[in-house]
Amino acid sequence: MGYFRNTIERMAVYTPGFQPRSQDVIKLNSNENPWPASPKVFEAIAKLNPLDLQRYPQSASDTFRMAASAVLAVKPENIICTNGGDDLLTICFRAFCDAERPVAYAQPTYSMFPVLASLQGCDSIEIERDRDGSLKGLVKADAALTIVCNPNAPTCDFIAIEKLADLAGKLSGVLLIDEAYVDFAEDNAIRLINDFDNVIILRSMSKGYSLAGIRFGYGIAASSLINGLMNVKDFYNVDAVAIAAATAAIQDQPHLTENVQKIIHERTRVTEQLLLMGFEVNNSQTNFILAQSSQKNAKDIHERLTRQNIYIRYFELPGLRDKLRITIGMPQQNDRLLAALSEIIG
Amino acid sequence: MGYFRNTIERMAVYTPGFQPRSQDVIKLNSNENPWPASPKVFEAIAKLNPLDLQRYPQSASDTFRMAASAVLAVKPENIICTNGGDDLLTICFRAFCDAERPVAYAQPTYSMFPVLASLQGCDSIEIERDRDGSLKGLVKADAALTIVCNPNAPTCDFIAIEKLADLAGKLSGVLLIDEAYVDFAEDNAIRLINDFDNVIILRSMSKGYSLAGIRFGYGIAASSLINGLMNVKDFYNVDAVAIAAATAAIQDQPHLTENVQKIIHERTRVTEQLLLMGFEVNNSQTNFILAQSSQKNAKDIHERLTRQNIYIRYFELPGLRDKLRITIGMPQQNDRLLAALSEIIG
Repeated sequence: MGYFRNTIERMAVYTPGFQPRSQDVIKLNSNENPWPASPKVFEAIAKLNPLDLQRYPQSASDTFRMAASAVLAVKPENIICTNGGDDLLTICFRAFCDAERPVAYAQPTYSMFPVLASLQGCDSIEIERDRDGSLKGLVKADAALTIVCNPNAPTCDFIAIEKLADLAGKLSGVLLIDEAYVDFAEDNAIRLINDFDNVIILRSMSKGYSLAGIRFGYGIAASSLINGLMNVKDFYNVDAVAIAAATAAIQDQPHLTENVQKIIHERTRVTEQLLLMGFEVNNSQTNFILAQSSQKNAKDIHERLTRQNIYIRYFELPGLRDKLRITIGMPQQNDRLLAALSEIIG
Repeated sequence: MGYFRNTIERMAVYTPGFQPRSQDVIKLNSNENPWPASPKVFEAIAKLNPLDLQRYPQSASDTFRMAASAVLAVKPENIICTNGGDDLLTICFRAFCDAERPVAYAQPTYSMFPVLASLQGCDSIEIERDRDGSLKGLVKADAALTIVCNPNAPTCDFIAIEKLADLAGKLSGVLLIDEAYVDFAEDNAIRLINDFDNVIILRSMSKGYSLAGIRFGYGIAASSLINGLMNVKDFYNVDAVAIAAATAAIQDQPHLTENVQKIIHERTRVTEQLLLMGFEVNNSQTNFILAQSSQKNAKDIHERLTRQNIYIRYFELPGLRDKLRITIGMPQQNDRLLAALSEIIG
């Protein structure tokens, strides 16, 4: 027998967007926010004292839970704080899935889900995504854990919340709604936690709040579900600096609104320009777009842009091989991308 | 079927030391360092720019790995960085243990081990700890994962590294040596990774480096073991601020040495005073001591100190009910503790 469990020996591995460390690049490949976080975040970090670093942090990040509950109109006990949204995904796989308890989701979606399934040693029921997010297929699968990424990465589209309510009511297991990109969308699913004790909503501070570097996410659910998940998370899973930064960020809603409006404005502009160039572009509710060229090979376009230090994302995956995922950057970054694309398309 | 897996429904829950938020207490109950982290840590945090928070951090914390490899005389590829030492424990349980692959350790030890075993759904082989750390019992158990906390919490004692080498050679599974407190001990096990591909050493920045609040730990092992564990950890498990802080801390070895010397000096002084009061005190190689009174009930002493806002740790556990675990504080904190104990003992 090897040192590692069999499921680890044969597991899938996550492939991230390339992370160039040079500042002299156009980085539109990881759906990071091009604008800085609220100045209040930097004030909060500067105010930390040595004792905050010496002592263990709050186990449940209560300072953040209090602040977020006021903003989101839920109770603190409806919130679990995690080391990025990925930590909440890991916690949910560990809490709900095993060899007898599968996960279900529609493909294409966030490429971390199959990795976490193989790590946990549970079956993945993967359904081809249709215009309705394959909700009928997910009802039929009725897995221990069903995940809907909404808006979905990398397809950018948004399933109406009423349809997710219908799904939640038909499932005997847990419905995880991954809302990592919801700050850029027209609606959200928080109201569902009042009616369904099997719904958990994932949120991230990485996208709308420009804080991918500090690793802070949270879940919103009925307190019965939150209480169980609290026992599964690492006891001190979020650090004191991240708690202070995330709290300052969520309390500055005007900054979020302004930031999101800037991105939506650019998203509209880039989409229109790409349509003029002959690309097909999904109607995006996220901070990125998925574009398809009928004239040029997507992989070739990706390689030519990379050679010019413009990084976007290409997935060697079913349903995505003819598409490019482009994070919305600042206007001057988007201009450089559009100019380069225009030259490539010719 | 409930929403949660059976193993989660019935799992054990970790009980931490009470975390009073008031500054006006003597807090000697969580083995935190009473002195602040290196000033270079605060300089490093102040130097972070908005882009460091906007973008995803290094997945493998390479900046820290480079710095630590120079200090520890190992290669960067022998190091895995984790969200506190607890994250490394979780990663090891997920990598090595399941229903067919048990964990083994001697009790009493770090109370997180049984919690992680029940979470992972693996059997725990618990052996009563003898003067030799029950190494013979651990060889006989030959579990998929064997854990030796060295120096051990909460018993403070230290097993000679040669005995651990002997153990590593006799096991067919992985030997995890939890060295969270090793900065206060007379030796360490790093040299074992050259001879044994089944040994992983856990380190923490929480104790010697005064950084419990930022959650940074790491593992040291043969690169074959590290590579496998890298696939099990969350992809972005450590945040950019923690990487910067931990790197600055480990590069300031003079600060560590001075800090450790102050604690060892106080440890000797507190031990001598307690012996004079009639306590039995283990010979400690950590930043805390385990003391036993032949005259007074340990639980009563703990309660009377708590009423005076002096927090130490009492465990309602086999082998520990007649003992008190006391973190070494600053001289004036230790003086107040000793005065209060002297009054209670009478």
